[in-house]
Amino acid sequence: MRHDHLITSKHLTREDVEAVLDRAAEIDADPDAVAGKHEGTILGLLFFEPSTRTKMSFETAMKRLGGDVVDMGSVESSSVKKGETLADTVRVIEGYADAIVVRHPSQGSAKMASEFVDVPLINAGDGAGHHPTQTLLDLYTIRENAGLDDLSIGIMGDLKYGRTVHSLAYALSNFDAHQHFVSPESLQLPREVVYDLHQEGASVREHESLEEVLDSLDVLYVTRIQRERFPDENEYQRIAGEYQIDLETLEGASDDLTVMHPLPRVDEIAPEIDDTDHAAYFEQAHNGVPVRMALLDRLLEGGVSR
Amino acid sequence: MRHDHLITSKHLTREDVEAVLDRAAEIDADPDAVAGKHEGTILGLLFFEPSTRTKMSFETAMKRLGGDVVDMGSVESSSVKKGETLADTVRVIEGYADAIVVRHPSQGSAKMASEFVDVPLINAGDGAGHHPTQTLLDLYTIRENAGLDDLSIGIMGDLKYGRTVHSLAYALSNFDAHQHFVSPESLQLPREVVYDLHQEGASVREHESLEEVLDSLDVLYVTRIQRERFPDENEYQRIAGEYQIDLETLEGASDDLTVMHPLPRVDEIAPEIDDTDHAAYFEQAHNGVPVRMALLDRLLEGGVSR
Amino acid sequence: MRHDHLITSKHLTREDVEAVLDRAAEIDADPDAVAGKHEGTILGLLFFEPSTRTKMSFETAMKRLGGDVVDMGSVESSSVKKGETLADTVRVIEGYADAIVVRHPSQGSAKMASEFVDVPLINAGDGAGHHPTQTLLDLYTIRENAGLDDLSIGIMGDLKYGRTVHSLAYALSNFDAHQHFVSPESLQLPREVVYDLHQEGASVREHESLEEVLDSLDVLYVTRIQRERFPDENEYQRIAGEYQIDLETLEGASDDLTVMHPLPRVDEIAPEIDDTDHAAYFEQAHNGVPVRMALLDRLLEGGVSR
Repeated sequence: MRHDHLITSKHLTREDVEAVLDRAAEIDADPDAVAGKHEGTILGLLFFEPSTRTKMSFETAMKRLGGDVVDMGSVESSSVKKGETLADTVRVIEGYADAIVVRHPSQGSAKMASEFVDVPLINAGDGAGHHPTQTLLDLYTIRENAGLDDLSIGIMGDLKYGRTVHSLAYALSNFDAHQHFVSPESLQLPREVVYDLHQEGASVREHESLEEVLDSLDVLYVTRIQRERFPDENEYQRIAGEYQIDLETLEGASDDLTVMHPLPRVDEIAPEIDDTDHAAYFEQAHNGVPVRMALLDRLLEGGVSR
Repeated sequence: MRHDHLITSKHLTREDVEAVLDRAAEIDADPDAVAGKHEGTILGLLFFEPSTRTKMSFETAMKRLGGDVVDMGSVESSSVKKGETLADTVRVIEGYADAIVVRHPSQGSAKMASEFVDVPLINAGDGAGHHPTQTLLDLYTIRENAGLDDLSIGIMGDLKYGRTVHSLAYALSNFDAHQHFVSPESLQLPREVVYDLHQEGASVREHESLEEVLDSLDVLYVTRIQRERFPDENEYQRIAGEYQIDLETLEGASDDLTVMHPLPRVDEIAPEIDDTDHAAYFEQAHNGVPVRMALLDRLLEGGVSR
Repeated sequence: MRHDHLITSKHLTREDVEAVLDRAAEIDADPDAVAGKHEGTILGLLFFEPSTRTKMSFETAMKRLGGDVVDMGSVESSSVKKGETLADTVRVIEGYADAIVVRHPSQGSAKMASEFVDVPLINAGDGAGHHPTQTLLDLYTIRENAGLDDLSIGIMGDLKYGRTVHSLAYALSNFDAHQHFVSPESLQLPREVVYDLHQEGASVREHESLEEVLDSLDVLYVTRIQRERFPDENEYQRIAGEYQIDLETLEGASDDLTVMHPLPRVDEIAPEIDDTDHAAYFEQAHNGVPVRMALLDRLLEGGVSR
């Protein structure tokens, strides 16, 4: 097994992360310098679950580097529905592609798949598991807007089921960050995640209300509270409403507060915030391109040890 | 808001149209001259409704110019089904693409979307609204086959619901064209369209039978009468049958008559016409490529004021 | 009609086949020599049925040659569901693409389609008909692993319905091959295929058990026995089980035995065989790329007469 896959952000060192972010910043500043660099390279896209942003972002990144993609398409149009195993699928695709991106609903699937191939494989989300490139672009956006040193970040919404949130929290534990988790009690961070974060020496506090910490925050990372989590619609409406933000909510915030969201949003952030200097969520989505360009560039050169 | 979107053909001036058609003719005559011209450029495709011709034609046009595309894919496989607004979707995609093509079922959607982005946005059909690139390729095909000066054109079929037909009629009102509308009474051109055309000074006449005008026509533009418009199947069969053409129908036509159709056709034009010199509908579909190349070339250079 | 389509492998001469395989071997040995050779060329993909391997393999092949593809997408998202005929669809697409690949569920469809277009058209499977590029990559894999001279090949599984098997058998009749067909009686090769093979002078024998011939084989080509063929689940389990192979099955085989499978597999070949030197099925899938590169290269140069 090669060591240039990217499966999880959990064990990425601070140096690993900073190397990718530095490269992304270079690319962002001068994309022409790498345009065409990986001409002739083909990236295989295996998305076993729907995705807009992640898939288009990887595709854009590879094409901005001069390469191209081959896409398995939807599961319905593929051999998967004939009962092919993931191990077989990736072994077939590695004959077509120089690197592979996999999104799959099963936790651990990307790790397993990576053991069957000799080309770099990137996990683009494995169910409740990891989604390391989302974490990298989140970190990049934080660094560009607020810096990763002496950071005070609020992470709000569904903290129980959110893969994105867990990955980000683990990654931030490598940095000098004060993490404030804001959620209804029923959607708190899982106890084992809190435990792990404490083990890593992270500064972690939990809150039920944003008000308690808003004024101290450099960054507010909002995630969606999903209707499906609540058996009772009224209960959902009541709780979700408390974790939505608008201009009024942000009155107590620092002028420099950066608001992030992994998107898609539904009602969590009022559109009136879009035009303020707080809003960084579209920039955050756009940052997926330079970050994934940086990552692909390194993996294709055999550079990331992971 | 930028002024290099293309949302409607209704306000395109004769000069705007002729500039695109002239450029398309240049490209058609010497495609190699622009091959690779827009290398590194990425066009975002957002099709919220199925499309074969329009989507593949834009994709081909961009690739023939040396660029590439990123495609959102079907609505089912995208974030849209998670409740994301069109305004959010296009703002995310503009981080990936240098220009955006949108097809959406809601009238006015492309216009609205264009107000949220800083890259050129092209309307590829907004429900009952507009589809300006179809109009441009129709005009190009007419000009190549019959010329746009002193033109006598019959437009036949479903004139009530046909977005294509309305756009074409508005665009032709800028030229010296005699427009003959041929349809069953129940599928006549909407009164407000007739009114608008008269206001524009267009020469417009309406007919229930093709025979009345066939011998005077330079171009016959056939559109499909859709079964869904008729509650009664027999009524549909009877009426649709009167607006289908075959070799016998065309006996009274000029030898130079050009027959067009936006495709797909079902029974409106008998296959026996395909091999005659009248048939221009496949050429018409093919013309989508040089016309869209011309348009993309101009928009990417910031050239079309619209 | 042009003569540079590829519709069937049935009438490919030994010289035709060897010319493609030789070119594929050259490309396989030095892919860089053709990278970018067909820059600016666009291949149209029309898949009216799901496919992973074939479609991605064609796409990869075209891109490795420096070209690009435009893909009609799924039937659900295309004009086909509006009732467009295949003849119309291909005539539209030939305006976009320099060559066309068609997969369609109806036998004879590719042949019919080829009569309407002036660009090379490749049959990528027409129902129970042909799939010549699968045959070419199968022959390439056999030649690379065991050679095509004095070959002893076992072809096992569903021989009644398998398009892949029939095409391969016809193609092998041009070579000095001893063909052993191994299947349950109910899934034997159709009598007319056996008759044709005898007419071609092929060496053909039929067996109900692999044991009868295993030790004499250079190549064992395994295909899937589909559950749908059996009204009774128990009967299926019993029979399918007899035509699955694992390490124990292969104890009586030559050390040099090459095991092939067109994939996807379900239970026909135990995963424990994957790591043995017998396994050539992933290599076989990968061979689709150089073989299709060779074929596209020749067709685009106007070279294959068929």
